[in-house]
Amino acid sequence: MNLPWREDKIQVISGLDSATSAIYEPILARLQRVEDRLLTLRNDSLPDLDLLIKHILNSGGKRVRPAVTLLASSVHEEQSDTSVTMAAAIELLHIATLIHDDTVDDAETRRGVATVSQKWGSNIAVLFGDYVFATSATWVCETENVRVIRRFSETIMELASGQISEFFSSFDAFKARSDYEDRIYRKTASLFCTAGETGAILGSAPEQSIQSLRSYGYSIGMAFQIMDDVLDFEGNSDHIGKPVGSDLCNGVLTLPSITFLEKYPDNNPVRKWFSDARDPEQLKLAIDMIMNSDAIADCYCVIQKHCASAQASLRELPKGPSTESLNLLTEYIMSRTK
Amino acid sequence: MNLPWREDKIQVISGLDSATSAIYEPILARLQRVEDRLLTLRNDSLPDLDLLIKHILNSGGKRVRPAVTLLASSVHEEQSDTSVTMAAAIELLHIATLIHDDTVDDAETRRGVATVSQKWGSNIAVLFGDYVFATSATWVCETENVRVIRRFSETIMELASGQISEFFSSFDAFKARSDYEDRIYRKTASLFCTAGETGAILGSAPEQSIQSLRSYGYSIGMAFQIMDDVLDFEGNSDHIGKPVGSDLCNGVLTLPSITFLEKYPDNNPVRKWFSDARDPEQLKLAIDMIMNSDAIADCYCVIQKHCASAQASLRELPKGPSTESLNLLTEYIMSRTK
Repeated sequence: MNLPWREDKIQVISGLDSATSAIYEPILARLQRVEDRLLTLRNDSLPDLDLLIKHILNSGGKRVRPAVTLLASSVHEEQSDTSVTMAAAIELLHIATLIHDDTVDDAETRRGVATVSQKWGSNIAVLFGDYVFATSATWVCETENVRVIRRFSETIMELASGQISEFFSSFDAFKARSDYEDRIYRKTASLFCTAGETGAILGSAPEQSIQSLRSYGYSIGMAFQIMDDVLDFEGNSDHIGKPVGSDLCNGVLTLPSITFLEKYPDNNPVRKWFSDARDPEQLKLAIDMIMNSDAIADCYCVIQKHCASAQASLRELPKGPSTESLNLLTEYIMSRTK
Repeated sequence: MNLPWREDKIQVISGLDSATSAIYEPILARLQRVEDRLLTLRNDSLPDLDLLIKHILNSGGKRVRPAVTLLASSVHEEQSDTSVTMAAAIELLHIATLIHDDTVDDAETRRGVATVSQKWGSNIAVLFGDYVFATSATWVCETENVRVIRRFSETIMELASGQISEFFSSFDAFKARSDYEDRIYRKTASLFCTAGETGAILGSAPEQSIQSLRSYGYSIGMAFQIMDDVLDFEGNSDHIGKPVGSDLCNGVLTLPSITFLEKYPDNNPVRKWFSDARDPEQLKLAIDMIMNSDAIADCYCVIQKHCASAQASLRELPKGPSTESLNLLTEYIMSRTK
């Protein structure tokens, strides 16, 4: 894997590491405008609300989703003003989902910072999440493109329904791989699809390119979430900020545990942990066995297949720096360790 | 007050009482289409989600907000198809806010039915509320009118920020009347404004009528919320489904308690209840004193002033059955007892 970042060569913008900054090179200036737009959220007239806004703006992030929007928008057209607004709305929607996800998961920190629900309580977090969702939708209206606006609202529906399905299927060891794929499409890949699709629409791409960039978004979104689920087993707990095996602990089947169940259907500790007994020894055993099984290697194969599909979608597009950056992004996702 | 309903004369559609059915007479057929649209929410492919949807659709309601949209839309134009969709979206947005409000208030029942958070837990309620919010926004997109879509998203921002302010100002006895007015505009009147304004836009009303119908919505929305706040003190607890004085109990100042504080600034039991001691005897005393004070009569005057403003806004519109129904609605709001 030949990644292009060199610490000495690139200017890192606030919040981004050198790897992502290098990939984002063709859109760094516009990504800075996305940051500036996020800062306009600040609200002097409502000081209580402003306190919350300040908190979430300081929480950082890799800005992968807005980068996809900006890159998708510039495959055919050099610059489109509305794509900056769209990219900011996409990131803001992502921030809103994190606020509610952290609330329902009762998470204490995210990226080393206290969550809104931890700092202000879950009630404020619910209402503030609503406010941020609505703000993102208002920003999308500035594009004045009804297709884009509709796609954005549908995405919020998909994100929420994906999380609902995760809740309803918790501690159900008989959910199949297809159920998992559908769920992670809705909770994660849907927003990546929309990031690619809306960027392409606003960048005046022809319909075929719009569909290719939507497919690209789908594939990297799936890869991104599966990598997240693998890191939940593989990652150093200091690194990812939560204990190893936290999904399984919460009764959530992800690809590593599903693959492990498929391969070893009999006498499986995951099934025992999910049974009414809920014996923590079985959880510990399940995590250990999954980490040391070939299930993890199988998951990496699935990630690579999705990244290969993403790269195939890109081959349908005109060559150029944006298409090249989108390609590098697939490699970055495969190499990510946190 | 001369209200036009006669039990024997009108056909009551499901969920509505005879009083509101009579007022809604010019739009009853279209209001039925709003009900039909709400039923399309049902989702066979996601049975868990469908269970939640079925629950909220059975929860009833007076449909005041969609009625305002439909009536506003037909002041200038006989029928507009998009206004039915808009009215359904307005009601759905209202339902979404109730799901989250009940979650943050930890309410057990609404209109005699268990709340989503009570039946499925607050986590599901948060995510399901998000889903319903997003669905309403998707429906609005069908109008293909960007002004209407933007106004709708801004309204969600206002609704959420109004609730946030209520939380932040709880147990603060020094918040002024202007703070209350701003808060109830955002948490309640904003949606009534939008119901009137968007109905007018979609009904091809001229700009002046759009503004009049927006003002009308503002005034009845303010009246509606203040009546709610008065009923919290006056209403029979069986009737309104919560204990008398529940706002004050939760540390929320509303117009009756604000008026009472303004009139009797010294040695006031509200201030004592809001102090760190939080003595329940002071709460009981405050509720008793407010119920028997002239503060309640003052609040009725404020409600009447808002209704008079609403009626003044209607005088700027062409006469006709829709304008007349909007006028009757102001009287209904003044006479409401639950």
